[in-house]
Amino acid sequence: MEVIRIPRIMREISKELRFKGKSIGFIPTMGALHEGHLSLIRRAKEENDIVIVSIFVNPTQFAQGEDYEKYPRDVELDKEKLEALAIDYLFLPDVNSLYPEGYSTYVVVEGLSDKLCGIFRPGHFRGVATIVCKLFNIVKPLRAYFGQKDYQQSLIIRRMVEDLNFDIEIIVCPTVREQDGLAMSSRNLYLNEKERQSATVIYKALKEGERLLNKGEKPLDVKLKMHEILKNEPLIREIQYAGVYDPLTLEEVKERQNKYLLAVALKIGDTRLIDNLIVE
Amino acid sequence: MEVIRIPRIMREISKELRFKGKSIGFIPTMGALHEGHLSLIRRAKEENDIVIVSIFVNPTQFAQGEDYEKYPRDVELDKEKLEALAIDYLFLPDVNSLYPEGYSTYVVVEGLSDKLCGIFRPGHFRGVATIVCKLFNIVKPLRAYFGQKDYQQSLIIRRMVEDLNFDIEIIVCPTVREQDGLAMSSRNLYLNEKERQSATVIYKALKEGERLLNKGEKPLDVKLKMHEILKNEPLIREIQYAGVYDPLTLEEVKERQNKYLLAVALKIGDTRLIDNLIVE
Repeated sequence: MEVIRIPRIMREISKELRFKGKSIGFIPTMGALHEGHLSLIRRAKEENDIVIVSIFVNPTQFAQGEDYEKYPRDVELDKEKLEALAIDYLFLPDVNSLYPEGYSTYVVVEGLSDKLCGIFRPGHFRGVATIVCKLFNIVKPLRAYFGQKDYQQSLIIRRMVEDLNFDIEIIVCPTVREQDGLAMSSRNLYLNEKERQSATVIYKALKEGERLLNKGEKPLDVKLKMHEILKNEPLIREIQYAGVYDPLTLEEVKERQNKYLLAVALKIGDTRLIDNLIVE
Repeated sequence: MEVIRIPRIMREISKELRFKGKSIGFIPTMGALHEGHLSLIRRAKEENDIVIVSIFVNPTQFAQGEDYEKYPRDVELDKEKLEALAIDYLFLPDVNSLYPEGYSTYVVVEGLSDKLCGIFRPGHFRGVATIVCKLFNIVKPLRAYFGQKDYQQSLIIRRMVEDLNFDIEIIVCPTVREQDGLAMSSRNLYLNEKERQSATVIYKALKEGERLLNKGEKPLDVKLKMHEILKNEPLIREIQYAGVYDPLTLEEVKERQNKYLLAVALKIGDTRLIDNLIVE
């Protein structure tokens, strides 16, 4: 595994690889790698000649007052995990090389970015679309891998790729969960033991929502039931959203349709957690 | 010359060409080609294996109430001019193929886009940055050519290319002028004989500004003199801006410095004209 820190050098290496006809699979991450990330990497290894992983805690996707400063960083441990998977390149840029003085260009995906998480994290998806656009131009992948846990993010990136005519296949992989159902997330590291226990209620609410939808219940009733379950957990400080949404538009769904997105975002203490299920 | 209308096909052709090691020079235009465009094409032909020209009147860069509908379109005449220069590909997409239903991604270059023309054409440079980003992903050029007449545009595109890590060289070529100094522009076609005559005052004001700056006069006095010259031309309906600016920040310059941008935007009848000079 080669570690590359300079964007221009990474871009040259990728260009050379593409020129040689190599397929590049790319997994952009913010580090603090867990089984979810590793599952994306394993999938990319199966499907591509070369696998490139980036680790970059992207400041532009953190809203004011969020956890940019304290976001978990453990590059040495991450490197060990990546070495064990024998990836080809780790792209590890610093903030100044990606956002130098005078930086002023942003990519905005309208509509989708203003819903669900976008309501509670102003500017978040602008930061995501911008950094992913930059990384795509640097890494020049044939395929890029994202986790379904960040469902809205994957939808926005697909939209950006199509709208801006990127020649990149976006592959969204299933959420990896702990044994008790909690979706893997770098932010789970913030939870103390009691909070970690209470966080299992998210998956319980989603699974109950899925069960009720499959039973034929109305989306609005399902939403109420999910809220009821979540409200019974005393450590939840704030339910940001929980309910039944359209998987393409992210609008709330009130009547029966073919496919649903069940999604939850909430805070336990200061820790913001999200999760979702697609129900067909 | 091959005419390509489908973005996906253009992208495949360009990809194949790059893969074969061919350098691609690209000139994005809105058609109504004049000597200014043709000078960019000749330069691109000298410097690249393959020359691709696009013609696309981009709706997203026209502000409300502007001349999108009546913008001059004469594709047959344009094709003859391009055939005569023996370019390799004309990319001629339709609006729906570049902005299909549900389109929602925009590229914004903050700061620079809000100055000079940006004040009078809200959203204009967002539209420019977006379409250029799209065309760059489709055409995958090694070099792209722009005219200095649209100085602010070239500055914004350079900024976008650097910020979004595009691997493309931006080449800005000198403004081509009529014998009497009027900068070539597709919009000159809008002018009647009297208006066409009065439009020469723009270059006169710029040249007088240049002379005064070279003589050591203060930028503020130069600006006043330019306004005086322009105000003496009765057919000018509105001076949007005229003065001395910093060539990098586009801020108005009040004290002496090393390099200046002299720039003018005004309306003669309904026709908006711009021009500029760089003075060192």
